[in-house]
Amino acid sequence: MKEFQIIEQYFAGQGPMRKDVVLGVGDDCALVQPADDKVIAISCDTFAEGTHFLSDMPAADVGFKSLAVNLSDLASMGAEPAWMTLALTLPEIDESWLKQYCEGLYEIAEYYNISLVGGDTTRGARSITITVNGQVPESMALTRGGAGVGDWVYVTGTLGDSALGLDILLGNRDAESENKEYLIGRHYRPTPRMLAGQSLRGIASSAIDLSDGLISDIQHVLKSSEVGAIINVDQLPLSKALISSVGQEQAIEYALAGGEDYELLFTVPDAKVGALTASLNYAGVNYTRVGQITAGRDLELSFDGRTYVPQQNGFKHF
Amino acid sequence: MKEFQIIEQYFAGQGPMRKDVVLGVGDDCALVQPADDKVIAISCDTFAEGTHFLSDMPAADVGFKSLAVNLSDLASMGAEPAWMTLALTLPEIDESWLKQYCEGLYEIAEYYNISLVGGDTTRGARSITITVNGQVPESMALTRGGAGVGDWVYVTGTLGDSALGLDILLGNRDAESENKEYLIGRHYRPTPRMLAGQSLRGIASSAIDLSDGLISDIQHVLKSSEVGAIINVDQLPLSKALISSVGQEQAIEYALAGGEDYELLFTVPDAKVGALTASLNYAGVNYTRVGQITAGRDLELSFDGRTYVPQQNGFKHF
Repeated sequence: MKEFQIIEQYFAGQGPMRKDVVLGVGDDCALVQPADDKVIAISCDTFAEGTHFLSDMPAADVGFKSLAVNLSDLASMGAEPAWMTLALTLPEIDESWLKQYCEGLYEIAEYYNISLVGGDTTRGARSITITVNGQVPESMALTRGGAGVGDWVYVTGTLGDSALGLDILLGNRDAESENKEYLIGRHYRPTPRMLAGQSLRGIASSAIDLSDGLISDIQHVLKSSEVGAIINVDQLPLSKALISSVGQEQAIEYALAGGEDYELLFTVPDAKVGALTASLNYAGVNYTRVGQITAGRDLELSFDGRTYVPQQNGFKHF
Repeated sequence: MKEFQIIEQYFAGQGPMRKDVVLGVGDDCALVQPADDKVIAISCDTFAEGTHFLSDMPAADVGFKSLAVNLSDLASMGAEPAWMTLALTLPEIDESWLKQYCEGLYEIAEYYNISLVGGDTTRGARSITITVNGQVPESMALTRGGAGVGDWVYVTGTLGDSALGLDILLGNRDAESENKEYLIGRHYRPTPRMLAGQSLRGIASSAIDLSDGLISDIQHVLKSSEVGAIINVDQLPLSKALISSVGQEQAIEYALAGGEDYELLFTVPDAKVGALTASLNYAGVNYTRVGQITAGRDLELSFDGRTYVPQQNGFKHF
């Protein structure tokens, strides 16, 4: 099978077709109509076997997660998803794998209404690079740089589940069967907090998605905003599955340094806490206050008022 | 060195910074301001060692060509380049390679004024995926689908040089030293026909860039436009370097099937030939009439009025 046929069969005319796609896959470029009065948010992530996912990860989950991690970047800017390109590198043409990959990819693409507008296929070690485009009113975009001293620090959802899910898959940990399913599900199919991000427009002073672990990712906010923070580790949102599998002490470690949660961490000035409550409760988003921005430049971890010393740092490539 | 530091050192704040980049590399997404009254053209290409380039290709040329092949897609739509993302997969962090790669990349990025707005780095076999964004007034975009019966077929520049350059690099062919330098240069540093593409707005009825070879690529125009074509192979523009290295007969074969020329093939209705001459001559673009669109569905090759049978077909991956 030739490259052109692969693209035509699996990618041309598949997935949701937005009205603002003037010309889809199949020409030298796609053409899309940007919204008036919005800027375009652009992000690019590579998802590679061996580095970002295990070789036995189900293909449908690879499809789902390869887009989810990119959508998470749009969510953390408060942007609405619009279009994406897909560069797929595969060791050989395995139609069963491709079919399942596309099922997972289009499932999440449909849910968030993002159109595939371009792509390329190459032979090589399995790897997926997706570039997403979203849209957001310029004045409403959530960056890492706006946190002010005294702002409260929040996270969505629960933290640490994905990292324990990975440890279970690696055979480093075990859990009861129901918990195991939940934790592996959190690792394979993270939920990009799209609605949360859009609900934080005009409310949050800064936002970031948690891909490398809270300790590692919050540093980007502190550096960009030129502030410090205190995080109360006893307030971190932990799932029952996480606590019952590893106990509270280890659960906190997973939550602080585990990575791949793809939850949002965001800061809100005290004057906007009422608006936050109204907006996120209306959207049905779970969120938890976990700390406060400080005047220093450092990250301080506290447990019941005492300094907390973590055992490990955030996960990094290379 | 950590991933974040690579990105910061080589990609954040480097290359041309356009005014429409509201927020550059360094947050979860970049933010860009689209132009009023234009649509966005999007294209994505992977450039992988072993498949798309030889392992001993100079890093600066890899940088240049990895962007050039993407810009060529924008050119063939008549779009102006605007922004790009870069996903770089490298076997190890080789700072000398990276530095030269960036020199080549930013050289062409500066020339065409395209801003790097996002990226990702991963460990693995060397491979580059670039997604480019350009802008074009919707009614002016050049697609593959507009060729009409009787339209004249043109190509820019000369054809076949790149493929002979590759054969010289592979040791399959040889050439005199001056020709060799030219031909290898055409292979390593193709010229995206950006100005030609923009000059064809409102004039050409269809356009495509020649990446896989004329015989292969023109089929996309014929299929999309539901027409046929006759190409007069004796009219194909051939460089002196190509002819003097392999003779006219082989030169025609290189021009028909060689691939990687990244010249434009376009069609123009007879009524617009005057406008074409004025526009492309003003822009200083070399172009040659090579055939005509026919009412059939087939591609016919002719040499001095007789049917020409080519020896090989276009180059394809997989």
